[in-house]
Amino acid sequence: MRKGFDIKGLERVSIVGVGLLGGSIGLALRAAGFAGTRVGVGRRESSLSKALACDAVDETTRDVAEGVAGANLVIVCTPIGRFEPLLRAMAKALDDGAFVTDVASTKSVVTRLGRRILPKRVRFVGSHPMAGSEKTGVEFARADLFERALCLVTPQPSTPAADVRWVRKFWETLGGHTRVVSPREHDALLARVSHLPHAVATALVKIAMRESAIDLAGPGFADTTRIASGDPGLWTDIFETNRAAMIKTVDQLIRELTRFRAHLDADDTDAIHAWLTDSKQARDRWIDRRYRKKVLPP
Amino acid sequence: MRKGFDIKGLERVSIVGVGLLGGSIGLALRAAGFAGTRVGVGRRESSLSKALACDAVDETTRDVAEGVAGANLVIVCTPIGRFEPLLRAMAKALDDGAFVTDVASTKSVVTRLGRRILPKRVRFVGSHPMAGSEKTGVEFARADLFERALCLVTPQPSTPAADVRWVRKFWETLGGHTRVVSPREHDALLARVSHLPHAVATALVKIAMRESAIDLAGPGFADTTRIASGDPGLWTDIFETNRAAMIKTVDQLIRELTRFRAHLDADDTDAIHAWLTDSKQARDRWIDRRYRKKVLPP
Repeated sequence: MRKGFDIKGLERVSIVGVGLLGGSIGLALRAAGFAGTRVGVGRRESSLSKALACDAVDETTRDVAEGVAGANLVIVCTPIGRFEPLLRAMAKALDDGAFVTDVASTKSVVTRLGRRILPKRVRFVGSHPMAGSEKTGVEFARADLFERALCLVTPQPSTPAADVRWVRKFWETLGGHTRVVSPREHDALLARVSHLPHAVATALVKIAMRESAIDLAGPGFADTTRIASGDPGLWTDIFETNRAAMIKTVDQLIRELTRFRAHLDADDTDAIHAWLTDSKQARDRWIDRRYRKKVLPP
Repeated sequence: MRKGFDIKGLERVSIVGVGLLGGSIGLALRAAGFAGTRVGVGRRESSLSKALACDAVDETTRDVAEGVAGANLVIVCTPIGRFEPLLRAMAKALDDGAFVTDVASTKSVVTRLGRRILPKRVRFVGSHPMAGSEKTGVEFARADLFERALCLVTPQPSTPAADVRWVRKFWETLGGHTRVVSPREHDALLARVSHLPHAVATALVKIAMRESAIDLAGPGFADTTRIASGDPGLWTDIFETNRAAMIKTVDQLIRELTRFRAHLDADDTDAIHAWLTDSKQARDRWIDRRYRKKVLPP
C-alpha cells in the first residue's frame, strides 16, 4: 500500500543543489511543518556553509550517494547539464520506494535521463515550479517562494497516478498550485511563454547595444529585458534541451513580426490598432485571472 | 534680449492635455516653486475637473485659443493624432516669444507640424520626457514623475541655442536630466529601445494566446510583456509616425532571431552561451550606469 503525501510522515529530504530554488525548498519545508532532517548536497563547501547559515538545510555533504541514502524524497535542483552524472551517482544509494523529483525548466530530456538511469524501485516524477528570479544563490532563498506559484508536474504515461498525486501534494504543501502536463507538452508550451521571451529579451539588448542606443532606454526597456540578465549557463541548458520547440516558436515570432511589418508598410492604421488591441486585451485578461483575482486557471 | 529660464519669472503656463504626463507637469511645476497660474486645456469637462481636484492645474478651459493666450510656456501633452488641429487652433492666440514644447514619443512628424503651422514669432522646441507608465489619466499623476528621468530635447538646425538651453532648463527644474538629439536621430534610436520592445511584447502575447499557452506563463512573462498593456491608440500613433525607423528595426530583430535560430539548429553550445553572455553583460552594465549608481550618461 502506498501512502499519500504527509509532511509529518517524512523523515529525511535531500536537496541536491542548494541555490535559490533548493534553499527556498528547505525554508518552505520547515515553514510548512516538516520536522525531519533536510540534507543539503552540493559541490562547493562555500555554498553548503551558506545554506546552513540561512537555515535552509540541517546537514550538508559533498558526497551525493551519502546525501541521498535514507531519504524519503530527493529534489534535484542543479542545472540540467549536471543531471546525468548526478543521477548515476545516486541510483544505487536511493532507498526502495524513495521519491525523486527535480525543478528543471525543461522536462523531456530530464524525463528520458530519469527513465534510463534511475532504478524501477524508486519513484521519479519530474516537476517545474515556476518561481525564482534572475537572481541566483541561496542568499536570495525565501520560505514563501512557492506561495501561489504554478508548479507543473510532468509524469510519463507509465507513472502511477498515486505517485503523481504525492508529488502534487508536496508542492501544494509548500504553497503552490499544481497542474499536470506531459513532458513534451510542457516543453512546447514553455518554449512559447518562457524560453522565447528570454531569447527575445536577449535579442532586444543586442539591438540596443549598437551605436549606444541603450543610453536612451528607459523603464519600459528595463522591464522588457529584465530576464536577459539571467544566468547564461542555465539558459544555454534550457535552449539546448528544448531545441525543436524553440526553433518552432522562433519561426512563429518571425511570422508575427513579418505580419506587423506588412501593416506598417501598408500604413494600415486599422490593422495596427487591432493588432495592439487584441494583444492588450488578452494580456489584461490574463493579468486579471492570474494576479488581481489571485485565481489560477484549473 | 532673451532671458534664460527662471521658474520665478514665469507667470502663466498652459498644459494642453491633462493626463498622466500633463498632470504630472502641473504638480512638478508647483513643487519646483512655480508661483504663477497653471492653465489646463482639455476636451472633456470630466478630465479637467479631475485635474483641478488633483491640484494639477489652477484654471481650466476647453477653448484652446483662450487657454494658451498670455502663456509664457505651452506644453502639448495630447496624442500625436490631435497635434495638427491643436497647433492650428493655438497659432494665432500665442503671445510673441512664447515657448511651445510637447511630450510626444516621436519627434520628426511633430517637428514638421510645428514648423509648418506655428508662426515664427513663437519658440517651438520639441521634447520627449521618458517618464510615464502603461497607466493613463491624471489620477496617476505625480510631482516626482520627472525626477531623474531622461528628457530628450529635439531642436531643428535653425533653433536658436538659447531656446534649446531654456527648454533644457525647464525639464531640469522639474528634476529631469536632459540630452539634445535631432528629431530624426531621436526617432531612429527610440525605435530600437522603445518602439520595437513594444511591438515585440505585443507579438509575444499573440503567440502565447494560442492554445492557451498563456495559462502557464509566470512572472518573467508578465514583466517582458508589461508594455503590451499600454494604450493601443497612443501606440498606433507612435508606430505610424515612425514607420521608416520601425520597419528598419523590425528587420534588425528578424536578422538577430535568425542568427539565434541558426545557433540552435547547429546545436552550437558555445555560440548560444556567448550570445546570452554578451547581452547579459551589456544589460547589467546599463542597469548599473542608469539605476544603481543613479548616474545618467552625459
